Amino acid sequence: MRVSVIATAGNIAGEALSNKSVVMFDILRASSTISTALANGCKEVIPVIDVEDAFALARQLPEGSFILGGERGAIKVTGFHLGNSPLEYTASVVKDKTVIISTTNGTKAIRYAAGENGRVFIGSLLNCSSVAKALADLSKDIVLVCAGTRGKFSLEDTLAAGLVIKDLLKFFNKNPWQAKTQEHNKFYLEETPIFNNDALILEDAAVAALRLAEYYWQSPIQGLLDSLHGQKLLQLGLAADLDYCSKLNHLTNVPVFFNDKIL
Amino acid sequence: MRVSVIATAGNIAGEALSNKSVVMFDILRASSTISTALANGCKEVIPVIDVEDAFALARQLPEGSFILGGERGAIKVTGFHLGNSPLEYTASVVKDKTVIISTTNGTKAIRYAAGENGRVFIGSLLNCSSVAKALADLSKDIVLVCAGTRGKFSLEDTLAAGLVIKDLLKFFNKNPWQAKTQEHNKFYLEETPIFNNDALILEDAAVAALRLAEYYWQSPIQGLLDSLHGQKLLQLGLAADLDYCSKLNHLTNVPVFFNDKIL
Repeated sequence: MRVSVIATAGNIAGEALSNKSVVMFDILRASSTISTALANGCKEVIPVIDVEDAFALARQLPEGSFILGGERGAIKVTGFHLGNSPLEYTASVVKDKTVIISTTNGTKAIRYAAGENGRVFIGSLLNCSSVAKALADLSKDIVLVCAGTRGKFSLEDTLAAGLVIKDLLKFFNKNPWQAKTQEHNKFYLEETPIFNNDALILEDAAVAALRLAEYYWQSPIQGLLDSLHGQKLLQLGLAADLDYCSKLNHLTNVPVFFNDKIL
Repeated sequence: MRVSVIATAGNIAGEALSNKSVVMFDILRASSTISTALANGCKEVIPVIDVEDAFALARQLPEGSFILGGERGAIKVTGFHLGNSPLEYTASVVKDKTVIISTTNGTKAIRYAAGENGRVFIGSLLNCSSVAKALADLSKDIVLVCAGTRGKFSLEDTLAAGLVIKDLLKFFNKNPWQAKTQEHNKFYLEETPIFNNDALILEDAAVAALRLAEYYWQSPIQGLLDSLHGQKLLQLGLAADLDYCSKLNHLTNVPVFFNDKIL
């Protein structure tokens, strides 16, 4: 079982996903919002790349059966019911509704990550443990796709990927912090590297994500605050969103995108 | 002053380098070998992408005035004097000679990183502090280019980039580990993010590299051992190379590529 991490969704080569378990992380905020809406009882979430397509889809649905949600530049789209704050997607608002969502980055990343498989888990800090369990159960090679921010590496998505890896290691009886306690001497050079055996191979980007997880796991909010996107949201007055999105394992559901919808 | 880290040399967009300080890291082993050869008194190092071009260049030089060095698949090129182990480039072998070097990854990465500027620092664990000093003196935006391994993120190059950032922060009176000691509460959400002010902005990939540096700085060899490329070299019996390449600040020279040669 091989674990790789892709830093930005735009960098996915289609063939790399075939017959693998794929998770997409856009934790500020699309992933967190989607998980929250589903946990709060919405019927389904339909990710749509273009705003116009979102309105067009809505016109096909019965009045009152759907919610239009999402953002551009972190701001609610004009004419939508909701923005992209997970805190807006309460049970009283979304229960039994179809949520049509369109965000700058996340909805595109889901489509990229779907690749040929067509199936993608939606991961965030809110559901790291549950995602890890789902991946361990499937026993396939794993690709953790970070949405990234404007085509660049994002600290917060990679942190979430690392926290999933940390939990995943438990299923292989590995202590993720093991490396710290080993002797670093010439003798050690003769030993087998800790991360690679027949059962589990962590690629370098996965090891780096795991190290981020160790740094921030006791205070994931710090990782969000250290990220440029987190700082932008803070400037926009969205501190409560950062606070919520940093709640590690607050939810237990693992949303799955398949056949154009997330359940 | 903005600090960015590019995970693989192939991902450089030419325009991103214009009027910036650029460092290339291929610490296993091209960067380490180049720095060592220059520290041991070679006249110059000329990086060449193709093996045939290396032989052609050598034919233009007086017999005995040059050394042909490099590897393909970590193995010495047939007909070359030396492979790509920095330990081979001793003063008695390279003093006053022109070193023509061609490696799978590193020489290509230098050319990519040169971009329009044409000027690239060669960084490794061996000279992190000196590289940081050179960057601080220049006061330009900084791009740290990791060569990567076969087009993928490499743990060891990113670690070296992180250790340069760690040293760089000292010039801005910042404590790189500051984040750990702060209070993580709602109040903190109101504070200014630690890494970004008018003087110094760390992009997310730079923060992540810094976190890797914190993890491994007391034992950089562990970072090399955790990397897939390090493990490959270990399997090839090159433990002594790993050991040498992990010597933090063993050298003080900062090689510069400009006008087709490294001095």
